[in-house]
Amino acid sequence: MAELLIPRRELEFQLYEVLDVEALCAHPRFQDHSKDIFDATLNTAEKIAEDAFLPHNSKADSQEPVFDGKRVSMIADVKAAFDHYRHAGFIAGRFDFEDGGMQLPETVMSACAGYFMAANPATTAYPFLTAAAANVIKHFASDALKRQYLPAMLSGEFTGTMALTEPHAGSSLTDIRTRAAQADDGSYRIKGSKLYISAGEHELSDNIVHLVLAKIPGGPPGVKGISLFVVPKFRLDQQGKPAQHNDVSLAGLIHKMGYRGTTSTALSFGDNDACHGYLVGEPHQGLRYMFMMMNEARIGVGFGAAMIGYRGYRLSLDYAKERTQGRAAPLLAQDDPPSPIICHGDVKRMLLAQKAYTEGGIALCLYGSRLMDAIHTAQDEEEKIRLSQLLDLLTPVFKAWPSEFGPKANDLAIQVLGGAGYTREYPVEQCWRDNRLNPIHEGTNGIQALDLLARKLWQADGQGLQTLMTCVQDDIKQAQGERCQAMVAALMPYLDALETAIRSSAAQIRSDKAGVLLTNAQCFMNLFASTVVSWIWLRQALVAEAALQGENLSADDQAFYQGKLAAADYYIFWELPLTDRDIRILKTQDATCNDIQTNYF
Amino acid sequence: MAELLIPRRELEFQLYEVLDVEALCAHPRFQDHSKDIFDATLNTAEKIAEDAFLPHNSKADSQEPVFDGKRVSMIADVKAAFDHYRHAGFIAGRFDFEDGGMQLPETVMSACAGYFMAANPATTAYPFLTAAAANVIKHFASDALKRQYLPAMLSGEFTGTMALTEPHAGSSLTDIRTRAAQADDGSYRIKGSKLYISAGEHELSDNIVHLVLAKIPGGPPGVKGISLFVVPKFRLDQQGKPAQHNDVSLAGLIHKMGYRGTTSTALSFGDNDACHGYLVGEPHQGLRYMFMMMNEARIGVGFGAAMIGYRGYRLSLDYAKERTQGRAAPLLAQDDPPSPIICHGDVKRMLLAQKAYTEGGIALCLYGSRLMDAIHTAQDEEEKIRLSQLLDLLTPVFKAWPSEFGPKANDLAIQVLGGAGYTREYPVEQCWRDNRLNPIHEGTNGIQALDLLARKLWQADGQGLQTLMTCVQDDIKQAQGERCQAMVAALMPYLDALETAIRSSAAQIRSDKAGVLLTNAQCFMNLFASTVVSWIWLRQALVAEAALQGENLSADDQAFYQGKLAAADYYIFWELPLTDRDIRILKTQDATCNDIQTNYF
Repeated sequence: MAELLIPRRELEFQLYEVLDVEALCAHPRFQDHSKDIFDATLNTAEKIAEDAFLPHNSKADSQEPVFDGKRVSMIADVKAAFDHYRHAGFIAGRFDFEDGGMQLPETVMSACAGYFMAANPATTAYPFLTAAAANVIKHFASDALKRQYLPAMLSGEFTGTMALTEPHAGSSLTDIRTRAAQADDGSYRIKGSKLYISAGEHELSDNIVHLVLAKIPGGPPGVKGISLFVVPKFRLDQQGKPAQHNDVSLAGLIHKMGYRGTTSTALSFGDNDACHGYLVGEPHQGLRYMFMMMNEARIGVGFGAAMIGYRGYRLSLDYAKERTQGRAAPLLAQDDPPSPIICHGDVKRMLLAQKAYTEGGIALCLYGSRLMDAIHTAQDEEEKIRLSQLLDLLTPVFKAWPSEFGPKANDLAIQVLGGAGYTREYPVEQCWRDNRLNPIHEGTNGIQALDLLARKLWQADGQGLQTLMTCVQDDIKQAQGERCQAMVAALMPYLDALETAIRSSAAQIRSDKAGVLLTNAQCFMNLFASTVVSWIWLRQALVAEAALQGENLSADDQAFYQGKLAAADYYIFWELPLTDRDIRILKTQDATCNDIQTNYF
Repeated sequence: MAELLIPRRELEFQLYEVLDVEALCAHPRFQDHSKDIFDATLNTAEKIAEDAFLPHNSKADSQEPVFDGKRVSMIADVKAAFDHYRHAGFIAGRFDFEDGGMQLPETVMSACAGYFMAANPATTAYPFLTAAAANVIKHFASDALKRQYLPAMLSGEFTGTMALTEPHAGSSLTDIRTRAAQADDGSYRIKGSKLYISAGEHELSDNIVHLVLAKIPGGPPGVKGISLFVVPKFRLDQQGKPAQHNDVSLAGLIHKMGYRGTTSTALSFGDNDACHGYLVGEPHQGLRYMFMMMNEARIGVGFGAAMIGYRGYRLSLDYAKERTQGRAAPLLAQDDPPSPIICHGDVKRMLLAQKAYTEGGIALCLYGSRLMDAIHTAQDEEEKIRLSQLLDLLTPVFKAWPSEFGPKANDLAIQVLGGAGYTREYPVEQCWRDNRLNPIHEGTNGIQALDLLARKLWQADGQGLQTLMTCVQDDIKQAQGERCQAMVAALMPYLDALETAIRSSAAQIRSDKAGVLLTNAQCFMNLFASTVVSWIWLRQALVAEAALQGENLSADDQAFYQGKLAAADYYIFWELPLTDRDIRILKTQDATCNDIQTNYF
């Protein structure tokens, strides 16, 4: 089976044909870069992912990390891969030159991340979490904290975590109990328990820098009283080197269904009242800071889900081309040779659905990264605000849609392989198990739907929504060819239905029917996300249809663009209409789920 | 967490209130039985399932069978459970008194099977496969073969398998290569390889009786040249005891994602040209015989999928009642205590969907079993044929629908538990992994859709379909109350759309557009199955609505029946409308999936 992770053609299409990443080089921030540098970066990522990450993906799953009560040990391949990654400078890839970073566009770095997520999501988690934690420190911590921690994190000598969840408080951070009491030296003493902390313990780095949410006694109640702390595994000595153990202890490892190579930990802070924490920024602003990390993590989760989905798609595609079974028309006689299963209609359907889900997710999240680049390079403050509002609005979709449809794609990949897909001798079942985490972490998809419907939609008086609709209409105007015009004709009623649903939600959310609306938040998410993804597919189709008008197109390019049109058709004609159900539920304010009483179950 | 497998109230509702199983006792075949005996049988099944099957369900998953090159070993709990089961007489439960069976109705035995499937599907596979293989021998084998094998199989001294799949031939049995050459003594010498043979090797029984599909050289080509053989692991001596090894060897165990407690084997027959096989029935009729086993197995797969789904539903329901998180209206202040998550709208939605999928699947498959009982007790041949046609028509639905929606329910159970659901510390992830086999084996769901659309629909001039429609209309006429009338009003357009789709399919399947139709077979299955399941939910709702009219109903009963109405509403108003998409695809003869070329992917 071919082990090609991602055909470069796909990434080039997204980066250069759809998102025009090259245009970024005109901006001072990226003026030292060029398409050649982007391509070279992609080459490096591809090579490290294939050479150092992919080979132990299955091994890290079957030989998961072990805690013997003292140390956590894991297969050596993980550290080798991590070191490759950090030595290539990828942790600091997005960071400024002055931080020692490569100052590369988010979009390019996301595309690079795609190789690692497809190759080995579990090992990838260690450097990714480190980069995300470093970004919070860079933006919000004092210069002193930055000097101490940032360089070591960006080089990968130290790794990072985000420590939010507690045994009794996951989605509801308002209820966290971890406490931070200020000591005479100005630092804090941390005490509490955290659960499901990814990469919370390991020996890949010299130190682990936990970003811990805790409450300072006497602060405001609820989420307004949450502060953020840097809590290292080892305190630093005068030279900034890890020295004394900081009273952070591993209570145990959590054993997961997938993503097994990433340690998931239960951590105790301050069992001996000797856990030092260092306040990041101002007191009681912790959740706001953490949300910067979480918002980036949410796009990352969505993109990772799309990439794991895509890996399954490519594996099942290769299998479907090679495996023969039965006879497809026009071969129908017993004596005819068996057909590759890709010739059977239902297999084509399962492959096309995977293509639509995963390339749709990739395009969606890369659009999100491109939006971040556009924000970083905006000409004026007004433009920056406008794009930031759009990014905020779409973040729940970036997270929830691919993490819903990536696992769906993996499920179809298993089905394409049939009995083989159900065995651990083939890699698609691990893809599914790994991907199943993504609808859960960084805010469950139920939380994302509520975030969208109860908060994001109305922020800044709905400016984000208006910007979105303007962007969609601008693209719709580009539809000249027959195929794209047919897609637009199919999409228009859903845009209308969405606007109607938003108008009626605005009224309902302030009425005594608000409970019904919020119970049906997933229906709203379905409609909103599916409309957005249809637009994302239309954008790809516009490029493909225009390219097919060109002359001297190679046969490969023709097939590539035809494939894009077919997948766009599939999404818009097969998937979008499933939201008719949601439109009706929202319109009738269907209370079936809201009204059921606990004892009826 | 409560470990109650299935509330008895649910089974009593299905058996006695919806399916009137007691009425069977009026028939000579069941005249020695009564509701008391049925209840006692259920009690025994429940007790053995809870005491002997449930406790090692997780252990059998984490400590799967091991092959050391000579022997297969597995945890001792499996044999203990198997022995409990066989000593209670369950293998022979459905069989005639004269065979040493209990001559119990299929419906009652299926309900019993539910306990075992919910408790431990992997261990359950050993006795279930044995009973299914014994049934084929009983119906088609010679008296001599029956005498040799049937009693030992029904007592569980011998176990059984069905050996169909080969490494190169799964869905396409026409291509099997295993050969059977007649020897001088009248028996056959078997030579070939079989793959994915469940329970193909173990030490739970004194002998393993493989039912092997093979071709007799010189026979007709394709499926018409397939014969069926009894191939024991050990040949029997004069006393009928297992003696000489029969040249069946284990090439290796397959390592699966779930269902790990059931050995999945690669078997070699006749490596030393000393594998004796005994023809069952006539030569070249093997596939027809095997289909008897497969059709029963297909209902069994569907029912098992519903039960594993149901187990996840109950587990996530218990969790949702106990786990607190956030505040649901009217508790909204910080100082309010956290709410059980079952109070949150989206959690209610996920629980109600699970209830609709799994109780729908249970009701559907028990209806299938009841149909088998009705066939066995039919007054005349005409009635028997009529009901058999209906059973044939619905068999692909019995298999495919619950095996699609059971895993969907398990997926939602994981989501209700959130991070906990993703860990192996909680049982719901194993439910999902176990259940994922069901859309694959006994004919993939893609095959089921083709079987329905290309074959079953048109059999006997569509008599089965006509019988189905009559049954549906009869139930529709019973709808008196407001709730059920609303359901009927929602269902009617889908019945019309289904009839339209069938009419146009009849024309299309004989046209040059047949390929498009068959490619979209899953859309037809969605529409057909969802309409059937809506009817099955209407049947439950009719009973519930009538019961709620009664006086002196206990609070528990009121809640139970209200729950049934809510789940029926959910299915008919939230799930059935998703097939609007399928209706449109079928109507427009959408060729998106059919037309895509291999190089477009």
